[in-house]
Amino acid sequence: MTRLIIDTDPGIDDAIALFAALASPEFDVTGLTTVFGNVTVETATRNALALLDIAGRGDIPVARGAAAPLAMDYLGAIPHIHGEDGLGDGGEPATPSRSALDVSAAEFLCRAAPGATILAIGPLTNLALALRLRPDLDTEVEHVVVMGGNALGPGNATPAAEANMMNDPEAADVVFGARWPVTMVGLDVTHQVVLPGAGIDAVTAADTPTARLLGRAIPLYRAFLEKVSGLAGIYLHDPSAVAYLLDPSLFRTERWPVRVETQGISRGKTWPSIGGTDDAAPAAWQGRPSVNVCVGVDAPGVLDLLTARLS
Amino acid sequence: MTRLIIDTDPGIDDAIALFAALASPEFDVTGLTTVFGNVTVETATRNALALLDIAGRGDIPVARGAAAPLAMDYLGAIPHIHGEDGLGDGGEPATPSRSALDVSAAEFLCRAAPGATILAIGPLTNLALALRLRPDLDTEVEHVVVMGGNALGPGNATPAAEANMMNDPEAADVVFGARWPVTMVGLDVTHQVVLPGAGIDAVTAADTPTARLLGRAIPLYRAFLEKVSGLAGIYLHDPSAVAYLLDPSLFRTERWPVRVETQGISRGKTWPSIGGTDDAAPAAWQGRPSVNVCVGVDAPGVLDLLTARLS
Repeated sequence: MTRLIIDTDPGIDDAIALFAALASPEFDVTGLTTVFGNVTVETATRNALALLDIAGRGDIPVARGAAAPLAMDYLGAIPHIHGEDGLGDGGEPATPSRSALDVSAAEFLCRAAPGATILAIGPLTNLALALRLRPDLDTEVEHVVVMGGNALGPGNATPAAEANMMNDPEAADVVFGARWPVTMVGLDVTHQVVLPGAGIDAVTAADTPTARLLGRAIPLYRAFLEKVSGLAGIYLHDPSAVAYLLDPSLFRTERWPVRVETQGISRGKTWPSIGGTDDAAPAAWQGRPSVNVCVGVDAPGVLDLLTARLS
Repeated sequence: MTRLIIDTDPGIDDAIALFAALASPEFDVTGLTTVFGNVTVETATRNALALLDIAGRGDIPVARGAAAPLAMDYLGAIPHIHGEDGLGDGGEPATPSRSALDVSAAEFLCRAAPGATILAIGPLTNLALALRLRPDLDTEVEHVVVMGGNALGPGNATPAAEANMMNDPEAADVVFGARWPVTMVGLDVTHQVVLPGAGIDAVTAADTPTARLLGRAIPLYRAFLEKVSGLAGIYLHDPSAVAYLLDPSLFRTERWPVRVETQGISRGKTWPSIGGTDDAAPAAWQGRPSVNVCVGVDAPGVLDLLTARLS
């Protein structure tokens, strides 16, 4: 069984990922840490607590994390995608039954992450802060699985950058440069994992509190994607990272050093130094550890796996 | 018949492109302009003159261009790819029969490019300078076909950037932002156009001065590519831009605004703002003209076309 800490900014697809993880006996979820991103950290923390209540897991501790990136101001919430409440504005979730821990997310990670896997599905600020608090943490954590970045394809927040990376490029560059084993589950694969209407019906049909929550949350996200890109379904960005942990054989990966651009119009772009370049890796990539980068995915297999866990 | 001015830094694949263009009755080549890049502008100018002599076209004027980029120092020649002499070190080309014009490349473009097509197969410094000298030049030129950039795939000079862009990102951003019709023939297509050994034999076998020059020039470039990437053949980067002009139906294109990164480790990356982004084009791309970006190619068709012209 994998001991799991989930760093999250719920967020509609964060909620789907969280419920899929909680429904998987392969995981012992021992904590949630929250971060600004899709919503403010206040909203993210309230939603994390509320979602755990809905899942009947009020025993899992929640530590409130960073309100802003390492080196810039918070770019702001994206209510047109996730709703004002971060959960699709389908009816305010009930007030959580309890409060977050009296310890920061970064401090919680320092204490609880040794020996655990971190599933990081928001901006990577908490992880970078934890490395600053405890410099050897990257030798103690089992595995860091990041939903974020785009190695070979375009971004979604800008032509260059994926949203979690854009929200804190400096932190992401720290995380991809640390010594822990990192897997990057980015848009290269998540843009292929589209849950169609029938799949949405399947995961929202049950008469359970989690299915009802997803039924209220998903329509706004679905309507946004249909409007801006004509997509018939929803991208399962964050849940794909859960699927990677459940069955890595569904993904094709490459081991490349990865830098994150912090400058110019490319800010937030994840750059692998791949084999196809005419010259050896330039100085900026030299000495960097290899990241396990997902470049291909059995999308039907991922959809089957996640739908089974959620139904 | 297309009146053509070729802006070039010969360069082995520049020589192939030049000979293919001169062998094509569809073109009236009315001038060459030279630029630093694969080699210094001194070497580029000597080679341009020598190559025209070899092709029996000592009537075509050559204007010497920029020795360095708009806003940085010249990164330097790449003799491991193109040779100390820029033509594969297969035997020094004969001293040219004449000198370059007593006018700069930028000034020559201002005078001669109205009504013509510019085939730009080196760094774009001369074109940007010409726009600064004659601000309406971009309304007078028929078409600018650029070999350079990478829209969707990785770079070759760095993980981010293609070599011609890396050599002058500021100039490239000016050229892609001007009002002239621009076609970008980048690595997205040229990395698919690989002339195999049998094709190299075909274009070097004839008992003609041009075939003999290519036979002396190509081996160094071929050996470099085989060593660094195991390629069985040579990329026809610059000749692919000639092929685009001869038969655009061999290419699949998209119309996207393109910015060129000038900052950070992404410096020199060409960024299209494409349809797949979740948001509307960010501010940096707004108001930019659409560039005709080659994203697909009938590589066998291009190879057949070029081989026929060169044999």
